[in-house]
Amino acid sequence: MESSDLHGFSPDILDRLDALVELIQKHQRFLLTTHRDPDGDGLGAEAALAAGLQQLGKTVVVLNDEATPAQYEFLDREGLFRRYQPSRHRELVATNEVAVLLDAGRLERMGSPGRGLAKFKGRTVVLDHHPGGGWADIEVVEPEACSTTELVYLLLERLGLEVTASMADALLTGVLVDTDGFRNLNATPRAHRLAARLIELGADAQRVREAVFASWPLARFRLQADFSRSLHTGHRGRLVWGVVDRESLKRWRQTPAAVEGFVEYSLAVRGTELSVLFLEEAEGVVRVSFRSRGQVRVDGLARALGGGGHQKAAGARVEGSLPAVRRRVLSEVAKLLGPTDS
Amino acid sequence: MESSDLHGFSPDILDRLDALVELIQKHQRFLLTTHRDPDGDGLGAEAALAAGLQQLGKTVVVLNDEATPAQYEFLDREGLFRRYQPSRHRELVATNEVAVLLDAGRLERMGSPGRGLAKFKGRTVVLDHHPGGGWADIEVVEPEACSTTELVYLLLERLGLEVTASMADALLTGVLVDTDGFRNLNATPRAHRLAARLIELGADAQRVREAVFASWPLARFRLQADFSRSLHTGHRGRLVWGVVDRESLKRWRQTPAAVEGFVEYSLAVRGTELSVLFLEEAEGVVRVSFRSRGQVRVDGLARALGGGGHQKAAGARVEGSLPAVRRRVLSEVAKLLGPTDS
Repeated sequence: MESSDLHGFSPDILDRLDALVELIQKHQRFLLTTHRDPDGDGLGAEAALAAGLQQLGKTVVVLNDEATPAQYEFLDREGLFRRYQPSRHRELVATNEVAVLLDAGRLERMGSPGRGLAKFKGRTVVLDHHPGGGWADIEVVEPEACSTTELVYLLLERLGLEVTASMADALLTGVLVDTDGFRNLNATPRAHRLAARLIELGADAQRVREAVFASWPLARFRLQADFSRSLHTGHRGRLVWGVVDRESLKRWRQTPAAVEGFVEYSLAVRGTELSVLFLEEAEGVVRVSFRSRGQVRVDGLARALGGGGHQKAAGARVEGSLPAVRRRVLSEVAKLLGPTDS
Repeated sequence: MESSDLHGFSPDILDRLDALVELIQKHQRFLLTTHRDPDGDGLGAEAALAAGLQQLGKTVVVLNDEATPAQYEFLDREGLFRRYQPSRHRELVATNEVAVLLDAGRLERMGSPGRGLAKFKGRTVVLDHHPGGGWADIEVVEPEACSTTELVYLLLERLGLEVTASMADALLTGVLVDTDGFRNLNATPRAHRLAARLIELGADAQRVREAVFASWPLARFRLQADFSRSLHTGHRGRLVWGVVDRESLKRWRQTPAAVEGFVEYSLAVRGTELSVLFLEEAEGVVRVSFRSRGQVRVDGLARALGGGGHQKAAGARVEGSLPAVRRRVLSEVAKLLGPTDS
């Protein structure tokens, strides 16, 4: 195995990984979980880490808030992933030795398994590439990592384990999801080299790409067509905004989850710096998503609306009718970009 | 500079490159050109090679069939690219010492500069990653390369030249265009490592990604919405097909070139193996494009209609009304996939 590229990582990353290696060696029973609305990075991290722990002869339980989305079922080759049910799993959680949170650092993000872990007495671990931390006994939290699976890969390497082809699939899934297929700022040289290595280890890159980027029902294309028709530009083309309303969701029998990727899609309008999506989640509840390229920061915008996020990706859930929320948000946007002209 | 990854290349690639290095050292005046409908790989290859030759003190002329598309103007930092005009450039072409064809191997693909080169008396070179060859004095033709810019990178390395940040931009442009942003079969480990190296050499990856993938006018999104609304599936979901008609092009004031990427877009419908786009280019002329994932081969399909292409990407220009061409093509598709059921 090539030696790992740690460029840009915090200097103590290897110390943290080694502490985790030691903890793994000392214990037998592991519980893995990821955040609500599980994505390919959290699920890929679970799949690869579970396989690694099983190679070591450990007993592994994977409990998530929701069932595995259809597009990611291929990651769970052994049918290990379970949806957490308090009546069935409370005891299993309570008696586990080690709980590992993947791709999120706080129990509140975990949904029902997080509530099950509230009084957990065993050892706790976080592996995550989002900023944060402070909850677990051992935290391998590295915002420079392109994905949580990158950190799992480093761990597997430190454990001296074989990365099988199916583990490489799982790890590559996380890389593709969190770099948006090598199209966002996470697509660093390190991320590219990791992808190269995973393909050489046997990852079926075409299959993973299809699972991540080519698994949409036809109705989702119709929904996106409605969204595209709704797009407006403003502020001399610096702003693009669009709407997905309940009527459109109903027409195509789609849930709000189907709009994943829409706000990035409209960011591709030429000259756009800021993309805004208004999603009418329920009567009187609008989820507003912001994406920026260039210098515009969207975290403040989201916070002003009671939400949160990062400089380039943020959002908020705002109460009010769709037209009212739109007016309110666009007037906040105008404060940021200056008066609109179109 | 790291040593190059030549994995999978033909064994004589270095001999060919060295012959080209020798030819470059012996001559002073170079003419570069690429194919009609120039894309980011051909133009990126021209930009990087021109800069390299200029570093060596050579005189370089770049003549293309068309003006540089707006999204790729950033590649031509020195305003070197010219649209070939017979009256103005015939003499310049005829008296050049070396003509280099980039990203295509035959003069017919070059448009008007190709006609200008028909009786060229100087030395001829092809750098290309499409199968073919047989025309030029020196041919560095390597279908395993992810892009023509990968071959230009190898050449620059053999020439011992510095790859500047703007040259790295140009080289990365070719990689992104021809791997579809690391989403198709050209996205090999070698392609990933090349991208990593180019970013480290100073390529502005975000800028290049935006030029390649986020430079669409709003009207192109409306056109794509019409296309999405037109999508139909068949053969138990193995086939998806859609239409762009002249009415839609006219409504959004778009040219047929605006549909670039549509047939790949609809290939992302879940379960699809074959995607077909019917583009009504003119009254009674329909361009049919095929894309396959999985085992379905589309080259035979295209040839049966008088066109051509590769196993996974092919097309043909068919005369007839849109409904007539659609019926004819879908009946050819049915022979390939078996009788339709939906």
